[in-house]
Amino acid sequence: MVGAAQDPRTDIERRLTDLGVALPAPPTPLGVYVEAVQSGSLLILTGMLPVVRGQPQFVGRLGGMLTVEEGYEATRTACLNGLAVAKQALSSLNKVVRVVKLGVYIATEGDFHEHPRVADGASELLLAAFGSDKLPPRIVLGVASIPLGMAVEVELVFETEL
Amino acid sequence: MVGAAQDPRTDIERRLTDLGVALPAPPTPLGVYVEAVQSGSLLILTGMLPVVRGQPQFVGRLGGMLTVEEGYEATRTACLNGLAVAKQALSSLNKVVRVVKLGVYIATEGDFHEHPRVADGASELLLAAFGSDKLPPRIVLGVASIPLGMAVEVELVFETEL
Amino acid sequence: MVGAAQDPRTDIERRLTDLGVALPAPPTPLGVYVEAVQSGSLLILTGMLPVVRGQPQFVGRLGGMLTVEEGYEATRTACLNGLAVAKQALSSLNKVVRVVKLGVYIATEGDFHEHPRVADGASELLLAAFGSDKLPPRIVLGVASIPLGMAVEVELVFETEL
Repeated sequence: MVGAAQDPRTDIERRLTDLGVALPAPPTPLGVYVEAVQSGSLLILTGMLPVVRGQPQFVGRLGGMLTVEEGYEATRTACLNGLAVAKQALSSLNKVVRVVKLGVYIATEGDFHEHPRVADGASELLLAAFGSDKLPPRIVLGVASIPLGMAVEVELVFETEL
Repeated sequence: MVGAAQDPRTDIERRLTDLGVALPAPPTPLGVYVEAVQSGSLLILTGMLPVVRGQPQFVGRLGGMLTVEEGYEATRTACLNGLAVAKQALSSLNKVVRVVKLGVYIATEGDFHEHPRVADGASELLLAAFGSDKLPPRIVLGVASIPLGMAVEVELVFETEL
Repeated sequence: MVGAAQDPRTDIERRLTDLGVALPAPPTPLGVYVEAVQSGSLLILTGMLPVVRGQPQFVGRLGGMLTVEEGYEATRTACLNGLAVAKQALSSLNKVVRVVKLGVYIATEGDFHEHPRVADGASELLLAAFGSDKLPPRIVLGVASIPLGMAVEVELVFETEL
């Protein structure tokens, strides 16, 4: 136990379980691309969507038919898919040294301004999983549309053990 | 011939030729930036546009005046410019170890949903050039506008031999 | 003086001072993320906004209420915040080997086409600071909206000395 406490990376998946968060099955590519590539110490992921069991969730735009809380949940759902992809690629999330990029792209209309709260759906999941010393820098943008009409897309790059 | 078959990287440009694809002259910067930078093993490119011989092609938006097939061709055209830039930077496309990022940004209006098919214009060119084991993860977004009113922009990062 | 001339990196901050450009205090995170992460030789920054002393500047869209010159100034302002973050992370901008990515995301409406001139607000500041041999490749996109209604967001990645 003392040893485990000294290495916070050993309990990432246990932390998620304790929070009641179960990793879903990772999404599978819908076209001629892959879900993740390792290049040197970087694990680079495909843009993650708020898909649950293969079905799009959270269709629509923020500032339109979706509330900020729905946007938060959509972003969390997409980010959770990213954790599932990372676990599949790495065998264990314990190999994540740090998250080095988080991009949150939000389908918006009109003068929507609450992007940061929507993006926190991903950031707060990463905080819960990895702790504050592994948090990434963040790019947040409102976009015109996202594949299949979904509300958000999440970009993740991890630094990993080699 | 046996040696060539053992190393698939040696025939990338021949594959393109066999497919009837000729690399264009690489685009030149329109401002104070460069078309590509090598940093460690990564070759990072400027956003590629569907320009042919210096002239914008495929102006307009998907979901508006452009069809999905035109969007596919626009994305393929932009990606082909990226291959030309990579060849110029590396001397030979054979030095590409893998494509590590593909971003496809599509000017859309209304409730356009067919982003994946438009993005395949780049993905299927990369598949033809490099084969399935070098395919990248993919970020696809609908955006509000692209420089000079063009329909798509393509982001590419390659892992290369040092 | 001869020694200084042989190493152009030693005078980056002096160049800025000579141009009358003072680095502002770096922005602080508005949520659960960090302003910059070092991963290997890469320094990856959060998306920089045109904020001055904690207050949003340049609110609105290009092609709408903001002129191209205002967009240029907004982009320069955001990029200057990025230099302040890089200086804080590195202690000295002299440790920048090269800028390896510049992303300029511009809130646009209608058929706005002058993205390159708006993006030059960042590119010309980087040119002034680092010189032409350290210029990055560039991604420029028009987006639907930016956090807090601001007009532009700037993404920067630097290659640094280890």
